[in-house]
Amino acid sequence: MIGGGQGGNIGAVHRMAARLDGQFQLVAGALSSDPERARASGAALGLDPARSYGSFSDMARAEAARPDGVEAVAIVTPNHLHAAPAITFLEHGVHVICDKPLTATMAEAEALARAAEASPALFILTHNYTGYPMIRQARAMVASGALGAIRLVQAEYIQDWLSDAVEAKGSKQAEWRTDPARAGLGGALGDIGTHAWNLAAFVSGMEPEALAADLTSFVPGRSLDDNAHVMLRYASGARGALWCSQVASGQENALSLRIFGDKAGIEWHQEEPNCLWFSPIGAPRQRLTRGGPGASPEAARVSRVPGGHPEGYIEAFATLYAEAAEAIRARQTGEAVPEGVLYPDLRDGLSGMRFIAAAVASARQNSAWVSL
Amino acid sequence: MIGGGQGGNIGAVHRMAARLDGQFQLVAGALSSDPERARASGAALGLDPARSYGSFSDMARAEAARPDGVEAVAIVTPNHLHAAPAITFLEHGVHVICDKPLTATMAEAEALARAAEASPALFILTHNYTGYPMIRQARAMVASGALGAIRLVQAEYIQDWLSDAVEAKGSKQAEWRTDPARAGLGGALGDIGTHAWNLAAFVSGMEPEALAADLTSFVPGRSLDDNAHVMLRYASGARGALWCSQVASGQENALSLRIFGDKAGIEWHQEEPNCLWFSPIGAPRQRLTRGGPGASPEAARVSRVPGGHPEGYIEAFATLYAEAAEAIRARQTGEAVPEGVLYPDLRDGLSGMRFIAAAVASARQNSAWVSL
Amino acid sequence: MIGGGQGGNIGAVHRMAARLDGQFQLVAGALSSDPERARASGAALGLDPARSYGSFSDMARAEAARPDGVEAVAIVTPNHLHAAPAITFLEHGVHVICDKPLTATMAEAEALARAAEASPALFILTHNYTGYPMIRQARAMVASGALGAIRLVQAEYIQDWLSDAVEAKGSKQAEWRTDPARAGLGGALGDIGTHAWNLAAFVSGMEPEALAADLTSFVPGRSLDDNAHVMLRYASGARGALWCSQVASGQENALSLRIFGDKAGIEWHQEEPNCLWFSPIGAPRQRLTRGGPGASPEAARVSRVPGGHPEGYIEAFATLYAEAAEAIRARQTGEAVPEGVLYPDLRDGLSGMRFIAAAVASARQNSAWVSL
Amino acid sequence: MIGGGQGGNIGAVHRMAARLDGQFQLVAGALSSDPERARASGAALGLDPARSYGSFSDMARAEAARPDGVEAVAIVTPNHLHAAPAITFLEHGVHVICDKPLTATMAEAEALARAAEASPALFILTHNYTGYPMIRQARAMVASGALGAIRLVQAEYIQDWLSDAVEAKGSKQAEWRTDPARAGLGGALGDIGTHAWNLAAFVSGMEPEALAADLTSFVPGRSLDDNAHVMLRYASGARGALWCSQVASGQENALSLRIFGDKAGIEWHQEEPNCLWFSPIGAPRQRLTRGGPGASPEAARVSRVPGGHPEGYIEAFATLYAEAAEAIRARQTGEAVPEGVLYPDLRDGLSGMRFIAAAVASARQNSAWVSL
Repeated sequence: MIGGGQGGNIGAVHRMAARLDGQFQLVAGALSSDPERARASGAALGLDPARSYGSFSDMARAEAARPDGVEAVAIVTPNHLHAAPAITFLEHGVHVICDKPLTATMAEAEALARAAEASPALFILTHNYTGYPMIRQARAMVASGALGAIRLVQAEYIQDWLSDAVEAKGSKQAEWRTDPARAGLGGALGDIGTHAWNLAAFVSGMEPEALAADLTSFVPGRSLDDNAHVMLRYASGARGALWCSQVASGQENALSLRIFGDKAGIEWHQEEPNCLWFSPIGAPRQRLTRGGPGASPEAARVSRVPGGHPEGYIEAFATLYAEAAEAIRARQTGEAVPEGVLYPDLRDGLSGMRFIAAAVASARQNSAWVSL
Repeated sequence: MIGGGQGGNIGAVHRMAARLDGQFQLVAGALSSDPERARASGAALGLDPARSYGSFSDMARAEAARPDGVEAVAIVTPNHLHAAPAITFLEHGVHVICDKPLTATMAEAEALARAAEASPALFILTHNYTGYPMIRQARAMVASGALGAIRLVQAEYIQDWLSDAVEAKGSKQAEWRTDPARAGLGGALGDIGTHAWNLAAFVSGMEPEALAADLTSFVPGRSLDDNAHVMLRYASGARGALWCSQVASGQENALSLRIFGDKAGIEWHQEEPNCLWFSPIGAPRQRLTRGGPGASPEAARVSRVPGGHPEGYIEAFATLYAEAAEAIRARQTGEAVPEGVLYPDLRDGLSGMRFIAAAVASARQNSAWVSL
Repeated sequence: MIGGGQGGNIGAVHRMAARLDGQFQLVAGALSSDPERARASGAALGLDPARSYGSFSDMARAEAARPDGVEAVAIVTPNHLHAAPAITFLEHGVHVICDKPLTATMAEAEALARAAEASPALFILTHNYTGYPMIRQARAMVASGALGAIRLVQAEYIQDWLSDAVEAKGSKQAEWRTDPARAGLGGALGDIGTHAWNLAAFVSGMEPEALAADLTSFVPGRSLDDNAHVMLRYASGARGALWCSQVASGQENALSLRIFGDKAGIEWHQEEPNCLWFSPIGAPRQRLTRGGPGASPEAARVSRVPGGHPEGYIEAFATLYAEAAEAIRARQTGEAVPEGVLYPDLRDGLSGMRFIAAAVASARQNSAWVSL
Repeated sequence: MIGGGQGGNIGAVHRMAARLDGQFQLVAGALSSDPERARASGAALGLDPARSYGSFSDMARAEAARPDGVEAVAIVTPNHLHAAPAITFLEHGVHVICDKPLTATMAEAEALARAAEASPALFILTHNYTGYPMIRQARAMVASGALGAIRLVQAEYIQDWLSDAVEAKGSKQAEWRTDPARAGLGGALGDIGTHAWNLAAFVSGMEPEALAADLTSFVPGRSLDDNAHVMLRYASGARGALWCSQVASGQENALSLRIFGDKAGIEWHQEEPNCLWFSPIGAPRQRLTRGGPGASPEAARVSRVPGGHPEGYIEAFATLYAEAAEAIRARQTGEAVPEGVLYPDLRDGLSGMRFIAAAVASARQNSAWVSL
């Protein structure tokens, strides 16, 4: 693991996700860019001191030289520290599981893309919300034509934790996310907007061809967006909207997706993830549940417990790790990846970067439509 | 009553709304533009045949001449038939209660505005959703500063009844609403978008200074919009979005409003109208209910039954009639209108017309921002 | 109207319910047992002073003598004042619409039953919750076999307004409801338990053959029950439970009904009355809505506005008045009552009285099963 | 692990729960009472074949003899196979983590209690629902007096998976649960009723002194109860009801708890576990959320991810494993168990057994009150 030392947040989530299905074991890490803190964090996690490194490059070199070196590495650093370790490990043939957004800059993203293409190793991007069973089902329903021709795609991701200038009050999480040097061009856009963007594409099976955006930084002193309204146009004629905000008072982690076709609509809310609403035109609305009578094979494949026993955020995250394990195993054995295995990869990462860039470009042109 | 004859829909709603609080009695009408149907409809409603007229002009003339002529008239015709009767009755000094949107064209709207200004009679526009108690409370909370400075206004009004070309299959309601000659410039924009626009302004206490819109007609053969995405900018720096759609499969009458300030947010859904969510930053979310411990005097003033006994659409509509009765009584007696009495009027109607016009103009300029 | 004067509550509801559909006009009343207050209340409601009576017996006599005397009377007094006026008006051939529970004592109930049998006039008991469209649909679904053989009937009616000794603090509503001399044997049992009892029977189509009850008076100084747990046994082998409480903190008017058969289950909540959950075994749960695609003719018959436009408590109450009007009209014309017309009557009233008596008897025998 | 081999269900849940927080590693097992299946299951889970045993007694003996023998054992067999292995491991000083209900018979339960008392090892019973953060908060709120004096405790646990005779159609899970020889005296009572019983006690801080029960076996051919209505009396004067059913069509795993005091009420639903409703009398209802502004330290102590990122069933289960790890560590070091550590133990198990016995006894006496 790169990053994820003491004081962090998402590192612990990755570790739980990796552990849940028993497919990964944490054996080495460069847990902080501060070598001292890296070692202390490694000790706290019970890492062999010999494999608790002071830097990602040390780790890559040393692990590559070991016969029992790591097979995969999780990168859980701030955005601007994704590209360098990812490229290094890919060059050493180590599979990379990387947090989103892909990188802080488009240049880094492109360099990473080249490295991934040149490497025999896999690159998995943790757009973790794609791991929810009912999201898998939603995707399958759209693909099967259950919604008919898609007309509308409405994605929202709203929170309130940046309603105030917490970045100036000691929140380490807020600090780097509101700092262009570390976060990149996008604030809310990069942190949560890319999740909404990715989820909409994952489920609808299509990406917009153009967008028009209005970005705002409501909190005084903040230079990156903390709110973005984005209108979407698809080549098919479909339309949509994406709204992400980190100043929506009272909202915790309200990611939602609604898709309407000419035959039916679906609706899903991350905070109630075991349920998917299905509304066929002319028939009663159905509440499909994970593990319930309307659950599809795609949902069942990534479920762990029966219906009514709620699975949550960690389980969805763990599903990406389980999918990664399947894909890595297939790569190692040369066999085909089992049917149904799905995970976001570099293309998703590049798409997210284009989304951020296009939204910022549109906002700078007074919300003109920008092609993707 | 003008319009509201057999085969119609909203006329019956107006009649129930007028009756509920016992303030109005239906005594005369020109219930259809077809004289035969007008008379049959009057008979079915038990009107004195002598006061069941074949045209609004006949009615205006005759009623004005009676010592017991109508004090107020409800106009419940399609949009293009609002202005003429409204102007006529205003000229005769009869108070007008008129369905929305104000008119089909801006020219009609302006003529009506001039007539209203010149008349001693009142003009009330039935943006009926402003009659809901928890909407009154929401408005009062914003005005009192409970939300702090407003940052975001998100209004939605989505339905699915025009998902298919029902206007070509005998739906009289759909026919005129999708016909530019009768509905005006806006399809969904006029029919439901103006409600969302009005409600957002009623509660937030402010109107956008500019908008950028993307309009679509999803159903083949339809010339007016059946879906509109609109981004909003307020002079205060607040931002917002308004989405109205009549092709959102599975949605019945999903009008909702969310407003976020720098201190708190609120959320309201028309289909669960007795509840208002209040989310102060840093404190638990509260479910305020009509008649419950958190209900404000503004909600109580327009409530009829205790908490937990749901009031609905007809009650909210009736509240506008009750407010109209208060205002008319005050006008007749020369006393002040009682505190708290609120109803949409010509300014709201003109604002709605500007909204339609601006949205259409923006859409024609590829979603450029248009000032209001 | 008998009762319903100033300071009352349910009288105003009856008047709105009577007015909504335009079938009744209030023309006479004995609005209070205090003649002075009766007259003042009549004046406030605009009654002709000659028809605003000081007592129900004056009114019965005088109205019966008028050629334009009342056709029906609404009795909205406390329980112990139901029987006498009801009997009197029935004897004069005036149709009676009476609030529930039927009477305060079983002896009164039986006398009233005899009077009703002897009278050509109708007796309608306002178990108003039977007027909700989705309750009509639920009843029809059970009757049609959509649920299969019924196994479980779970009824709840919980409130919190008697959590404290409000009867000692000036609440007139609480005073008589907690006074055995005026309310009868049952406290919560009579006030709300009879509603739950009636609703369960109305929808399930069957009444328990035995019950076992545990009654409590939680608030010090209160002699009647403010909470009742009741277990139910049906002749068919079905089982059930009824819980009513007026000390369930935070509950407003939470009447709910769940029925489970061997094919499907249904669930309904009075505070969200436009929705009925339908759960067929082995298929997804459906959210049926009034006016929506799954609404049945029985629901449509008593609906006034389209789906998504919520109807509430007053509308359901008004439906009983509309049903009464249909039945009265049929009685007057000698024609058959139109198909689908339903209203609780004396049998329902007697059943409710037996429920109260049996629950009290069971409680006195330490919750032994008591036959009905 | 004892039990949990192929074809089982709860074994996999225990393994995920044990893994999630990285406190336990599965190193040995007697995964089936069928030695062949035990070995195959061990191989599938990657157990060292030398530590994949054919019987629990072999395992106990062999592991006790190893210097690196297991510290704790999880028992996930059907009810009648809890006591023997639990007693054996306790005798060998191995900590026992055992599924509920405690045993199949009271005699076994008492033997187990004696063994536990005699052993230096700990006994943890996986009433897993006590691991939910908002349940911890609910318990703390009751204990702090936030609800005032408790008046009502309403627990429900309803499912539908035994609506049909699935035990006769090959469901292994249903087979033993409906077999008195393996399940014990209680059907639904033991399988889910004990969970509801335990949860009510865990949160309310008190146990009933008497109960009256009505048990039913709705499905023909079933000898154990599949539905139980139970009325509860507490020494304090509080009252309550517990309803458990496995024939409630359309219900997945609907465990809920409502507690009403004279100051406030709370409500919690297992299928939406991150939320706790708090209803103080005279103030608006609050929706407290795990990780949200109203979350208590007790909830935070057992939370893993921020608010709005739902934690579910596996996390709650894992919390019991984490608590067990804390308690075992304290036992090993001789230090005090850290503040806040909570887990159900033998007393809870015995209480559950008394609940089953009392309910069955009451039912046999036609629902007479039976003391506990």
